[in-house]
Amino acid sequence: MPRTSLNGMRCSVARTLDVIGEWWTMLIMRDAFRGVTRFEDFHRSLGIARTVLAARLDRLVDNGVFVRSPYSEHPPRSEYILTDKGRDLFPVLLTLMQWGDRWVSDDDPPMRLVHTPCEHVTSPRLACEHCDGDVAHDTVRPEPS
Amino acid sequence: MPRTSLNGMRCSVARTLDVIGEWWTMLIMRDAFRGVTRFEDFHRSLGIARTVLAARLDRLVDNGVFVRSPYSEHPPRSEYILTDKGRDLFPVLLTLMQWGDRWVSDDDPPMRLVHTPCEHVTSPRLACEHCDGDVAHDTVRPEPS
Repeated sequence: MPRTSLNGMRCSVARTLDVIGEWWTMLIMRDAFRGVTRFEDFHRSLGIARTVLAARLDRLVDNGVFVRSPYSEHPPRSEYILTDKGRDLFPVLLTLMQWGDRWVSDDDPPMRLVHTPCEHVTSPRLACEHCDGDVAHDTVRPEPS
Repeated sequence: MPRTSLNGMRCSVARTLDVIGEWWTMLIMRDAFRGVTRFEDFHRSLGIARTVLAARLDRLVDNGVFVRSPYSEHPPRSEYILTDKGRDLFPVLLTLMQWGDRWVSDDDPPMRLVHTPCEHVTSPRLACEHCDGDVAHDTVRPEPS
């Protein structure tokens, strides 16, 4: 498929994919949520070409997912810090992880999440902001706004 | 980046992306959750090359996200029906939509979700299965299992 922009589609999923959707970009986000901030550390973790990683990080900066923050002047080096917009991608990462744990993990899930306020291992659910009931494909109805 | 498989990485996010991560595949899922089942309808909605769409649907069938169900013998035609594994991608789609609504929508979100058990428009939250508190990047701690 040609990399035409999805940004023109009036659909929030399409617009989101236009920003973050390249298949491996969520691995950059995964590393960022683990605390990775430096180019060399992303590069070591992802094992992709430096030029490709640099272009992808540039795009995420341009889209406001990261900001660059200098940490060295000689040589000039910057960290990539998640913005509010970037941090707000956490639910996407979490739901990707949950699906993988359930459907494509051939053994015990490699990571687990501890909810720090209660200190329990948790597999979070989607809850309705009104009634707190579970939200799933068969309990919501999409409507035009 | 070469399309090397992420399946070998011991990471549920990487394995999930290996199945669903091609940037526009979630638009197939979006249409499927809207009730689209037929090749022609996916094609009309997505506007991509037939060969590319066919290859992508084949892969989703191979990965158990859809099953094919014949609806015509002359000519032979099948519908693509979501499996449990496919339906379980709904939270990923929902969190992508929420992020797009918040960060890349230049006007009112095009769609809203009604939680059918309570009939309220809802923006679901991630809730801890133990204490029901909000789960966000700053209230969970990932640990090796």
